[in-house]
This record gives sequence, C-alpha cells and structure tokens, in this order.
Amino acid sequence: MRTLKLTLAYDGTRFEGWQIQRRSGARPTIQGTLEGVLRRILQEPVRVIGSGRTDAGVHAEAQVAHVRARSAMPAERLLRSVNQLLPSDIAVTRIEDAGASFHARFSAARKRYRYRLFTGPVVPPFIRPYVHQIHAPLDLARMRREAEALKGRHDFRAFAKRRSGARSTTRAVTDVSLRRRGRELRFEVEGNGFLHTMVRSIAGTLIDVGRGRLAPGTVRRMLRTGDRRLAGATAPAKGLVLVSVDYKPFS
Amino acid sequence: MRTLKLTLAYDGTRFEGWQIQRRSGARPTIQGTLEGVLRRILQEPVRVIGSGRTDAGVHAEAQVAHVRARSAMPAERLLRSVNQLLPSDIAVTRIEDAGASFHARFSAARKRYRYRLFTGPVVPPFIRPYVHQIHAPLDLARMRREAEALKGRHDFRAFAKRRSGARSTTRAVTDVSLRRRGRELRFEVEGNGFLHTMVRSIAGTLIDVGRGRLAPGTVRRMLRTGDRRLAGATAPAKGLVLVSVDYKPFS
Repeated sequence: MRTLKLTLAYDGTRFEGWQIQRRSGARPTIQGTLEGVLRRILQEPVRVIGSGRTDAGVHAEAQVAHVRARSAMPAERLLRSVNQLLPSDIAVTRIEDAGASFHARFSAARKRYRYRLFTGPVVPPFIRPYVHQIHAPLDLARMRREAEALKGRHDFRAFAKRRSGARSTTRAVTDVSLRRRGRELRFEVEGNGFLHTMVRSIAGTLIDVGRGRLAPGTVRRMLRTGDRRLAGATAPAKGLVLVSVDYKPFS
Repeated sequence: MRTLKLTLAYDGTRFEGWQIQRRSGARPTIQGTLEGVLRRILQEPVRVIGSGRTDAGVHAEAQVAHVRARSAMPAERLLRSVNQLLPSDIAVTRIEDAGASFHARFSAARKRYRYRLFTGPVVPPFIRPYVHQIHAPLDLARMRREAEALKGRHDFRAFAKRRSGARSTTRAVTDVSLRRRGRELRFEVEGNGFLHTMVRSIAGTLIDVGRGRLAPGTVRRMLRTGDRRLAGATAPAKGLVLVSVDYKPFS
C-alpha cells in the first residue's frame, strides 16, 4: 500500500460540501466526486480522507486529502488522469507520495481560511460566487481590534454551531489579518483547527461589530463566557475559502 | 431626451458576444439582454450602443455603452433596478448622465484589453473561464521584445480576421505590457481602436513566438507586409477581457 497526498482546489457553489452524504437527494460532494474518479482510474476501492470538512458552498484553494492505494501508477500520470475526469469546478493541483503515517486530518498542524467581503455597490460577475456583499459602511479599525482578540488559545464554543459532547472546543488561533484590497475586505485566520462554522461565525461577528450592530469587545466576551447568543449572524458560505493546510515536516 | 453613459462588467462565457444577432437559435447577447432590461424598467424603446463589439466568449471589466431615453428616473435608482433584473453574469457598475453629444463608440479615445495566459499544469477552478492554458514553456523576454514592435501607428490588417473594403486598418497602439503574476502571464494592450480579433491574433502570435514556433521579428514583418499568413493561431476568446474604455474630457 502507498499513501498519496492530494492537494485540491474547488469552487464549492454547487456542492453539498466536502463530506459524502448518506441521505438521498443531496447534491454531489467533493469527497464523493473525487473518490469516484480515483476508483475509476486506479481500478480499486479507495477512501479519500480530507483534512476536514468544508460546508456546502464553501470553496478551497488548497484542501489536502490522502488515499491509500495499491496501484503503482506514477503520481504525475495519476494527476493528469484525475483532472481529465474531474468536473471543471474541482482541480487536483498536486499529488505526491507521502509516508505511510501521513494522515490528512490527524497530521494537519495548521489551517488557514479567508473570508471575502465586498463593500462596493455592484459585485463584478467574476467574483460574485466568492464574496459576501455588505451594503453598510464598515469601521475597519474597530473590526481589526476585535479580530486581535481572537489570537491565542481559547475556548471557541461560542463560535461553534454544533457542540459535540466529548470533544474539546479549545483551539489556538496563530494569526489573524484584515486587509482592504480595492473594494474587497479580506479577513484571514490561521489556527491549529476550527470548529464547525467557526470562521463564518467569527466573520459574521466582525461584520456586525464593524457596522455598529454589536458593541466592541463582543469577541472577548464570547471567548470568556462561551455564550453563543452574543454572536453576530453567521456569514454566508460563499465568502469562505480554505486557503491552505500545513503539515509538520516529515509527517 | 437625455443621454446615459453605462459602464458594465460581464462574464462572456455563455453569450454570443456583445452584438444582437439576427439569426435564430443564437445564444443571448450582452446588448440584447441589457436592452431588454432597460426597456422593461424605463417603459420606452431604447437602443444600447456599445463602445464596440466583443466577440462570443470575450469578457469585460468595464465596457461602456450609451442610451438615449425620455425617462427622468434618477441614475442611481436606475442602476439598482437594472442590476436587480440582469442575470448574475452581467453587472452595470455605473450609470451617469452624459452630454447630448456623447457617443459610446465615436467618442471613445482609447481602449485597453488584457489577455490572460495560465502557465501552470492545473488551472484553478476560480479562473478557468478567464484564462488560456499554455502547456509549453514560454520565453518571456522574447515575447516582450516582440510586443514592443506593436507600439505606434501601424496598419494592423495582418492581425484582422475580416477586412472591410472601405475602412482603414491603421490603428495606434499606445501601450503594451507583459507581466508575470504567479502562474499567470498577462498581456495588456492599449490603443485608439482595434480591428476584429486583432488582440486575440496578437496574443496568439506572441504565444507562438514565445514557445518557439514562430521566429522573432514576426510581428514586425506582419506590420510591414500586411500578410495574415505569418500570424500565430488566434488565441481563444475566453482569455480576453476588455479592461477599460477612455473618453476625452467633456465628450
């Protein structure tokens, strides 16, 4: 058996998200589509394991996944074949042989997400599927101060949609940034892991602070109290993109 | 009657191009779609005149058009209404009252086009409709020297698809640039006007010089001889975008 590490980009618009859905009538998933294509090429059953799920409508610039396979097909040839069969909204950008212990989810050390806000009156058609338009004026300095409070190790359960009884809701945020780029505002956050809808909940809270709907200090209060009711509206999936997943060397 | 100047962006992928087509069975056009929406809102017959046609599949960041109308509706309200009715691949970014003598085509002083080449092995899904992928290595320095030869006033008929007997094929190119941006190569050209498929023919010739299929000096020879047979393959429409149209002040 060999372990293959795959890096892939996708436009999440028409997908039910990363993870294969059992219920019938669901839209296609990234994982399911990729598995189908790999099985067809490798002629063996494979299971695609992602670094984590992305929700319906969320995009990825560089999601990472792994598969274990018997096939000896050179990675380069596999890359070409996979992209020939994948639909145009998914592209595998890299395939490489990884160590047998590599696990896309458990070996992941850091992830980076970007949330894109568009602040102009009319969204250009080219970026419409990838940005969330905000009509109200935003106080950027206030949003930046709010975002700073996210840095460090905190219990982020106030930003999570579902709570799973057993698992810890503590995560470490290693970097945040908020940059203006023309009529776009880009919020980026990097951390050792993220809870379900955590980034969209953070983005929504920052937006509501920026437009004056929520008081400055909301993020700090949410981290301290764990109270989800303090959060802003969860920002829509289309503005979110998984930018990168980093692994420890030799993992 | 008032004259309205409209600036619009569009993703040309599913359109038959700018200009209304008479033949039946053609795909929708930008001009036709925009006219339909304006008529519905203004409740009067209007004719949309563009700065020029863009071919099927060509995009625009800032095409300019004008309409003459009786309606007194404020431009800002019209802008909102138009965008509410337009499909998501067309967006009017600006509407302003212009002088009675303003004519989107005849008053245009300069236009700028960009041609986007993607040089990596796998095109990210987000830009797939907007770039032309080149698999061969390209000699950028050689392409730049070739592009320099375009500058100035020349007879560009060797780069034009159709020749109309009467009209002049002389145009002035005021600026060219070729820049690398990550795995993209962006060719930009600005001039006082462009012949049919001229930019795509130039792009195709530069590509073929860059990959060694055509000898350096091809552009110069084409400008001197007017011989279309020397040209490279016309580059596909999807990589081309009309970036801007400039007007003289007070036009």
